Amino acid sequence: MEHVKPDGLEQSPPISVGDDIYALAARLFPIRRSITGDGVRRTLDVLSGHVALERHEVPSGTQVFDWTVPKEWIIRSASITGPDGQRVVDFADHNLHVVNYSVPYKGILPLDELRPHIHTLPGQPDVIPYRTSYYAPTWGFCMSYDRVSQLPDGLYRVEVDSELKDGSLTYGEYLHRGKTEREFLLSAHICHPSLANDNCSGLALLATLAKHLAARETRYSYRFLFAPGTIGAITWLSRNEDRTHLIDHGLVLSCVGDAGSPTYKRSRRGDAFIDRAMAHVLGHEAGAKVIDFSPYGYDERQYCSPGFNLPVGMFQRSVHGTFPEYHTSADNLDFIRPEHLADSFRILSEVIDIVEGDWTPLNLVPKCEPQLGRRGLYAALGGQKSQDATSMSLLWVLNLADGQHSLLSMAERSGLPFREIAAAATMLSDHGLLGDA
Amino acid sequence: MEHVKPDGLEQSPPISVGDDIYALAARLFPIRRSITGDGVRRTLDVLSGHVALERHEVPSGTQVFDWTVPKEWIIRSASITGPDGQRVVDFADHNLHVVNYSVPYKGILPLDELRPHIHTLPGQPDVIPYRTSYYAPTWGFCMSYDRVSQLPDGLYRVEVDSELKDGSLTYGEYLHRGKTEREFLLSAHICHPSLANDNCSGLALLATLAKHLAARETRYSYRFLFAPGTIGAITWLSRNEDRTHLIDHGLVLSCVGDAGSPTYKRSRRGDAFIDRAMAHVLGHEAGAKVIDFSPYGYDERQYCSPGFNLPVGMFQRSVHGTFPEYHTSADNLDFIRPEHLADSFRILSEVIDIVEGDWTPLNLVPKCEPQLGRRGLYAALGGQKSQDATSMSLLWVLNLADGQHSLLSMAERSGLPFREIAAAATMLSDHGLLGDA
Amino acid sequence: MEHVKPDGLEQSPPISVGDDIYALAARLFPIRRSITGDGVRRTLDVLSGHVALERHEVPSGTQVFDWTVPKEWIIRSASITGPDGQRVVDFADHNLHVVNYSVPYKGILPLDELRPHIHTLPGQPDVIPYRTSYYAPTWGFCMSYDRVSQLPDGLYRVEVDSELKDGSLTYGEYLHRGKTEREFLLSAHICHPSLANDNCSGLALLATLAKHLAARETRYSYRFLFAPGTIGAITWLSRNEDRTHLIDHGLVLSCVGDAGSPTYKRSRRGDAFIDRAMAHVLGHEAGAKVIDFSPYGYDERQYCSPGFNLPVGMFQRSVHGTFPEYHTSADNLDFIRPEHLADSFRILSEVIDIVEGDWTPLNLVPKCEPQLGRRGLYAALGGQKSQDATSMSLLWVLNLADGQHSLLSMAERSGLPFREIAAAATMLSDHGLLGDA
Repeated sequence: MEHVKPDGLEQSPPISVGDDIYALAARLFPIRRSITGDGVRRTLDVLSGHVALERHEVPSGTQVFDWTVPKEWIIRSASITGPDGQRVVDFADHNLHVVNYSVPYKGILPLDELRPHIHTLPGQPDVIPYRTSYYAPTWGFCMSYDRVSQLPDGLYRVEVDSELKDGSLTYGEYLHRGKTEREFLLSAHICHPSLANDNCSGLALLATLAKHLAARETRYSYRFLFAPGTIGAITWLSRNEDRTHLIDHGLVLSCVGDAGSPTYKRSRRGDAFIDRAMAHVLGHEAGAKVIDFSPYGYDERQYCSPGFNLPVGMFQRSVHGTFPEYHTSADNLDFIRPEHLADSFRILSEVIDIVEGDWTPLNLVPKCEPQLGRRGLYAALGGQKSQDATSMSLLWVLNLADGQHSLLSMAERSGLPFREIAAAATMLSDHGLLGDA
Repeated sequence: MEHVKPDGLEQSPPISVGDDIYALAARLFPIRRSITGDGVRRTLDVLSGHVALERHEVPSGTQVFDWTVPKEWIIRSASITGPDGQRVVDFADHNLHVVNYSVPYKGILPLDELRPHIHTLPGQPDVIPYRTSYYAPTWGFCMSYDRVSQLPDGLYRVEVDSELKDGSLTYGEYLHRGKTEREFLLSAHICHPSLANDNCSGLALLATLAKHLAARETRYSYRFLFAPGTIGAITWLSRNEDRTHLIDHGLVLSCVGDAGSPTYKRSRRGDAFIDRAMAHVLGHEAGAKVIDFSPYGYDERQYCSPGFNLPVGMFQRSVHGTFPEYHTSADNLDFIRPEHLADSFRILSEVIDIVEGDWTPLNLVPKCEPQLGRRGLYAALGGQKSQDATSMSLLWVLNLADGQHSLLSMAERSGLPFREIAAAATMLSDHGLLGDA
Repeated sequence: MEHVKPDGLEQSPPISVGDDIYALAARLFPIRRSITGDGVRRTLDVLSGHVALERHEVPSGTQVFDWTVPKEWIIRSASITGPDGQRVVDFADHNLHVVNYSVPYKGILPLDELRPHIHTLPGQPDVIPYRTSYYAPTWGFCMSYDRVSQLPDGLYRVEVDSELKDGSLTYGEYLHRGKTEREFLLSAHICHPSLANDNCSGLALLATLAKHLAARETRYSYRFLFAPGTIGAITWLSRNEDRTHLIDHGLVLSCVGDAGSPTYKRSRRGDAFIDRAMAHVLGHEAGAKVIDFSPYGYDERQYCSPGFNLPVGMFQRSVHGTFPEYHTSADNLDFIRPEHLADSFRILSEVIDIVEGDWTPLNLVPKCEPQLGRRGLYAALGGQKSQDATSMSLLWVLNLADGQHSLLSMAERSGLPFREIAAAATMLSDHGLLGDA
């Protein structure tokens, strides 16, 4: 796309944004989500209060590349009653208690036949694990190991009142139109029930970001996608195959509310603009990590499949699968905090500022330095030990403005934050020292 | 060459291979070798029991590039008798006692005139050093420093019953023919007398490997060369100059039986396929080292001379010249062990598996991931913290099978062992998900 | 340029060179320098005793790129007298006491109005800082913080007897003509008054180097430039714009006499020959640092501005601005030492040897190693644990002399000092084994 001088960077987001995101995540948390069904629809209802979502329903049975949109899962109740007639486990008590997509079942079983249907985490005996079986028809329960280890022998009555019926897969998207139709894709999975970090945090952050962006005139168009993991992204790609060439930048978001340091996982390309921009921003964050692409994780798996190879990376805080709360009942609303959500929001805002604000200036006075002093751009008094950050930004921009370096390249080479480089470029432009390359 | 899907990888070598190699090395150890003569011939006789060697005799005086094949050295006996009539040193006692290629000499000398002809290692006073003088006509003895320091003044009787006569330089080679005439050269020097690691170990390992390969249908042809160091490699290159363009991969072997961690020294090119394959295999070996090419060492010096610049690296365990036993009587049969020889054999086998098994697959379902679950290639139950190694291999192969990555590239990028990547590619091929690029 | 085999490297400089440089720096130290005026002229007078300088006078008001040559500054006297009639500060006592380029002023001021005109370093209370105001018309004094903090309230009489009048900017240059007109630019700023390391050291070292070079027949032409910082380099570039294409290598010198380890700052290009040569030499110096280009520092700022982008790096010992003596009265003749000046001289000499002595040889016996032994270039006795440095240099040169590697490349790849590689190349040439590539 044409790189033009941007209108300037946005203001910092208000501090309260973390509270807003947290409040939205808290509303999403209790909803019974799966990859299809009313849980997804109710989640999109809540998000629609923040952003004007377009909703899509894709019928069960639709072929999407190598996959088929599954039947819709309806779960009404599920429980196990013990030999003594007491409830051992009840889906009404926790959304994680039933293996997601369990088929209907009713029967009486001795404990040893029941056991293979009960999933626990012996290493974390007091939490309920999260398990799914979308494509292999089975039923199951998830419980704390402590509870299961107390079960006496005897006959157990199992009832899973679920249904798999023709329906549809639901996803929502929102397009913030910019000056060009080149797109920045922001995607979060909408299928996990009652896991706060994974991914009420990502959904709430994206919806809040969309709301903020709505009021801003941008160069890029921003597409926000809220779709079930794997099958949702595959469905979207299948229906938008002819539009993917418009995607210049993309991020998958998940687990953005915990106390861990920010992590960026590179796109398959490894050197896309989004990879450089995220690496630059995280390079100025203490403790942040940038890790290489791998084909396991979230929907970057689909966006970065070899037939698409889109410039889509993944942003999270603690790396999924590495923290004990991951995919357990411990990933609850205590595990995410407004300040971490606000920090993730700020990081995304900085990356958007880079995407929006990058341009390639040309030094109009390229032979020797221009005399900054008489333009009021340089300390009048010489002899100081070092230069202030503003002067260094000005000098770097002038030195690298040879038409081969965009502002991001300058930030990378100088080690200075993009925003300082961008501010210096604006100042120099205003003084007629820089033009468009 | 054409990269076709291989027939599959070989089984692991039997555990007993270390004992076989050790037993062969032990048979080679006592033979009186030099760069020419009957020692080389007897060594080739022993190796011929394992592999159908073709033997070459190149007459003394033959011009080979900048060198001339030297006269053949015959040594019958050599000794020094002291002032008291007692034997001070006798070649019959140890093959290292005489400087290799000593000219004939008979005389009576006072100790101070004898001393310059006696070589010791004052820093390792109890071992006999190994010394040669192939191209400067002189005579000498090698002894332990302790023994020499006890010699009283007086007249010593010296007798070196040797002869330098027109004869030939002898080397052996064996070609295992594969489907193509592209070659993998495996070369070991055959000239060192009674040094177990350097290089009875390499000779025995190569002969054993040749024997194993003989029973295998391979893509590449494998050339095994057993020739005296330096002059032998030069002679071979001189006589096969028009065939060197067939060599796609090569390894020089020496010192492969000691307890040190495996070491690979890169070819002069540094990024040849053999360099990548060895680096990959050693990257999964604790303590292994990969070092840069340097023009000192073994016959890689000749193969990597600028007029050839062949893709030939060098494999050893402890780096030659860095361990105290190197080129001394301490490099004996106690210094090498069957388990280390077996480990070296396994490493070479893995490299051959890479050379044989590498191919460039093409993902036939490149848009999004294929649904592995319904093909039984993916865990039915979702939500686990991480994927098993097999699933990760499958995902990596699918993701990188864009026609630009061979299996070795995939192993390099994923950090997974080649054999797991290759197994995944076979599995995916069998399910019709991969084709030839 | 044509790379021909050089006539051989120069001898090491005599040990006494450090004393010579120190003595010259000591003569330069007391002169009252600024960016214009008689201080510069007197400094050039002294340097002319060592090297046949060509002197240039550029009139005030001359436009040089974005800058204008300023009026000449004349300072006759400057002082402050306290309420008690005692001298508080007198320019006659120290050249740093007056802000360089202070405008004339005469007046009586209360202490609080005087204070903004007095510059101190509270963190280093006993030293006088160095301050300038070349382009913003003001007056000021520099004093120790301790002295200023003792000043009583009251009225102070200030007298700055200075003058800014049309005159000229003065610089000197010396061209040592080599066999070709391709140039090595060596540049030092001449404007700092009474700062020993910054930059009496650089001026004295360059003049001494020029004197030594004068007696030597060189391949390159060497241009020595002694000009005021910033405006001097800009003026020179403005007047020599059509000659800058001749500059193949360049170094700015400053702060070359202190006890710090040598530091090289790369040119903007980062991979110019001078960058590689300096990195090679400093790679063999304990504690030496090679740092990336940044657009703050000395006149490399101008030479490396994007309109020129010359291959000019900067050499110093301690990095300017990082040592406490920098730009203070503590940067006096005790801060620099003959041995450090001699060390800097030696490093520059080594770099010049590389620039002069680099060439690209071609191995005339490229297939296998040539037989060095019969040429007396290799140890007669074989079997030693390692090779001596000379043999390694010979082997490296032969191995890399494929017409693609200059001696510097060989030194880089082998890790051996350039001088050893160069000596080996000469030896091999003398034996007819190397020719010109």
